[in-house]
Amino acid sequence: MTTLIPDWLARQAALHPQRPALISAETRYTFAELDRWTGAVAARLSQLVPKGGRVAVLARNRPAYVAVVHAAPRAAITLVLLNTRLTAAELAFQINDSAPDALVAERELLAVAREVIAQKPVIALEDLAAPPGDEELPATLIDLSAPHTIIYTSGTTGRPKGAILTAGNHWWNAIGSLLNLGLRDDDRWLAVLPLFHVGGLSILLRGAIYGMPVVLRERFDPSAVWRDLTEQRITIVSLVAVMLQRLLAVAPEPFPHHLRCVLLGGGPAPQALLEQCAQRGIPVTQTYGMTEAASQAATLSPADALRRLGSAGKPLAPVELRIVTANGQNAAPGEVGEISLRGPTISPGYLGMAPRPPTEWFHTGDLGYLDAEGYLYVVDRRSDLIIAGGENIYPAEVEATLLSHPAVAEAGVVGLPDPEWGQRPVAAVVTQQTVTVAELIDYCRARLAGYKVPKAIIFLPELPRTAAGKLRRHELREWLMSRVGE
Amino acid sequence: MTTLIPDWLARQAALHPQRPALISAETRYTFAELDRWTGAVAARLSQLVPKGGRVAVLARNRPAYVAVVHAAPRAAITLVLLNTRLTAAELAFQINDSAPDALVAERELLAVAREVIAQKPVIALEDLAAPPGDEELPATLIDLSAPHTIIYTSGTTGRPKGAILTAGNHWWNAIGSLLNLGLRDDDRWLAVLPLFHVGGLSILLRGAIYGMPVVLRERFDPSAVWRDLTEQRITIVSLVAVMLQRLLAVAPEPFPHHLRCVLLGGGPAPQALLEQCAQRGIPVTQTYGMTEAASQAATLSPADALRRLGSAGKPLAPVELRIVTANGQNAAPGEVGEISLRGPTISPGYLGMAPRPPTEWFHTGDLGYLDAEGYLYVVDRRSDLIIAGGENIYPAEVEATLLSHPAVAEAGVVGLPDPEWGQRPVAAVVTQQTVTVAELIDYCRARLAGYKVPKAIIFLPELPRTAAGKLRRHELREWLMSRVGE
Repeated sequence: MTTLIPDWLARQAALHPQRPALISAETRYTFAELDRWTGAVAARLSQLVPKGGRVAVLARNRPAYVAVVHAAPRAAITLVLLNTRLTAAELAFQINDSAPDALVAERELLAVAREVIAQKPVIALEDLAAPPGDEELPATLIDLSAPHTIIYTSGTTGRPKGAILTAGNHWWNAIGSLLNLGLRDDDRWLAVLPLFHVGGLSILLRGAIYGMPVVLRERFDPSAVWRDLTEQRITIVSLVAVMLQRLLAVAPEPFPHHLRCVLLGGGPAPQALLEQCAQRGIPVTQTYGMTEAASQAATLSPADALRRLGSAGKPLAPVELRIVTANGQNAAPGEVGEISLRGPTISPGYLGMAPRPPTEWFHTGDLGYLDAEGYLYVVDRRSDLIIAGGENIYPAEVEATLLSHPAVAEAGVVGLPDPEWGQRPVAAVVTQQTVTVAELIDYCRARLAGYKVPKAIIFLPELPRTAAGKLRRHELREWLMSRVGE
Repeated sequence: MTTLIPDWLARQAALHPQRPALISAETRYTFAELDRWTGAVAARLSQLVPKGGRVAVLARNRPAYVAVVHAAPRAAITLVLLNTRLTAAELAFQINDSAPDALVAERELLAVAREVIAQKPVIALEDLAAPPGDEELPATLIDLSAPHTIIYTSGTTGRPKGAILTAGNHWWNAIGSLLNLGLRDDDRWLAVLPLFHVGGLSILLRGAIYGMPVVLRERFDPSAVWRDLTEQRITIVSLVAVMLQRLLAVAPEPFPHHLRCVLLGGGPAPQALLEQCAQRGIPVTQTYGMTEAASQAATLSPADALRRLGSAGKPLAPVELRIVTANGQNAAPGEVGEISLRGPTISPGYLGMAPRPPTEWFHTGDLGYLDAEGYLYVVDRRSDLIIAGGENIYPAEVEATLLSHPAVAEAGVVGLPDPEWGQRPVAAVVTQQTVTVAELIDYCRARLAGYKVPKAIIFLPELPRTAAGKLRRHELREWLMSRVGE
């Protein structure tokens, strides 16, 4: 029995037509305006893409992106959100895999867009999202079981997988966040995270579901964020650790009183940063989330934010979380195991793979433990996952790229600590032909998003491996750390 | 595909074990304590009632009632909530119709309970809800499609019908209310409405779903409410109009600043009362609700409370509301029609009747219109429904009782305006044998809850009827009004 609910944006437009919905550098839209715009974009989209089809989006944070995000479900179209930092080859893989019926790209990225998709329409975001004209698609009911978004998350195999998020995954996540953080009349959420990541996207959806203004910025700029916090009377902002560090550097005054939550996600935060924020009275709320959980899975409640430094809190109300030991049992308090999740916020699965039944657990691959009071501490993201400035880097993907170079016989990539970005990727390779580090880095740069390109490459006669030939990643990491250092 | 979510009370107990969950005259329970108590009551209930069975509850507002409400779903048992003001005959009808596996009654009502149920266990609430012992039933997942509560609502046929409310109906209603009213750290909801009505019950469920303290009182006492508002730092209170009037009479001082919402339901409110509250700056939020909608269906948002006096606001976010004209079309703005509802808060149907598919509209029988901006104005509750002090009285039920008296040939019951209770029931009868008004009133009193007994009975030679013999209720009402007056 599927659940149908009124289109959330249309409902908030009916409830609060004049309330600001979206504030950007250029302009501001009320809920009524954003809803009308969404209807117009939905009408245009439905000319390009059949019901049940897919539209890929390649754009940075722009107001028009928001209209497309709300318009696609209104036209019964699933969104495929593309990371603008990917190379053409990486994008082409995701396009081939998700087979969208059309690609919407901001004008500056049209050339790339045309390069990566063949025989399907490519539309400029600016044209698609022109002001409302004659035709508007009316809002209909939202089917919570319908696929809403596809976002690629790289896996340990090195091949990115398209995680499917339903409308219900997003709805339940928004409600789970609401039950944790509360909701006030004056709430305004600042969105500086990319909208093609679930961390940014989920802010838009919360805005529409709660009837809450969202202030959208094209990129993170610490001085601009500091100005926004005050001038836009921001009450909640989502940041990753490197952004918060930069913000602190430009923010000498006390933080404004109305800022009630700095939602800090995108990987582990340095303890020193958390302590500095605690000393300055900044209400940092750590969260543990991921694409497959439609953003937050566990979040420290504001009341606990300063008392539980370093914890990612407790699971959101609709989410079950357990720590599974190597033999499949529930871990004891304090015992490290794999973090596993279940509930209506969790993705039903990946494109082209069998869906996970809702009663089955999603095994994150991340390691953590619960303390005696049930607070989650994340010990290590999926053993080999590297997180640099909130972007996930899967070593297997970088290793596969290095291995595709004729000179490289073996490759191992690990994350080393980086004071600014949290981690940086570093590679060790065994060569079979002569090659220089610069050549390999250029080779990677042509094939991988910049943030994935190793910051250092070390030549070794052999890589540490198990008897079965499996890379001893931990050992390699220790060794590289002693060589390359912090 | 059914949706499973963690047991809401257990989850809030895990999140906020030490937060007060339930404050009553005798004691206060933290979320951890209420959760443990619930587990113990669930273990005892599961000894009496099989999984999938039903337990009826006959009790006034007591802390133990709260434990039973949360325990029943934990034991996969559906609650049948009985109105303590009903007569034994009325209760017996509901017991026969709902066929519970056991009846839980507070000690003072045990004699009545034993009278109305045969061959099934009758347990004292006080014994069932004794402090936790050895055994506690652990919390499991809540299946949102599972029946949670059965509450009888009398129909136009004169036979009460058991409205089934699923766990999901309650959950979605709580979330819809949350999206409208917001949620603050310091929220505390005062419950003086009976827990056997959906208006009182829904407060308990919101408390458990939000992790919000509920202050429970056994009955409405205006001076006690006034004291609670201040001393208990109540932020939200649910009242019906007659209660609010009595509260104003004892509340000379300005209302406390932290009181942010007086949720006013249970039928239409007199305009003079709303204006008086507006003048005194009391944040009255009118709501239009009913059992079948799991309480609120439309509610005025706090921001509009003083600007839209007399409106019941806009539908809750998960609810669709339309006004249907006599020919089945959507009414134009300002045009009166039947209020119809759809969405995940709406009951799937009544016991013993075919369930309503979720895509079909629930026709409330109430008349209203939407203004040009979509605000609901309720013109008349189900043409013949009488609401006295928040209690629904169905004329057909009172008429059927009068007609069962051998002296009565015809009977018509209408609601006349009452300055204190909103309405009072008045009857007109055509007799076929000699009988006195006092005799008829005694006869009703023995068979009907006190609030349903006609406050006046007029003897007429005939009742106004249509050619088809249908009572012209409106005409009778006008005539009685001129005779009996206000």
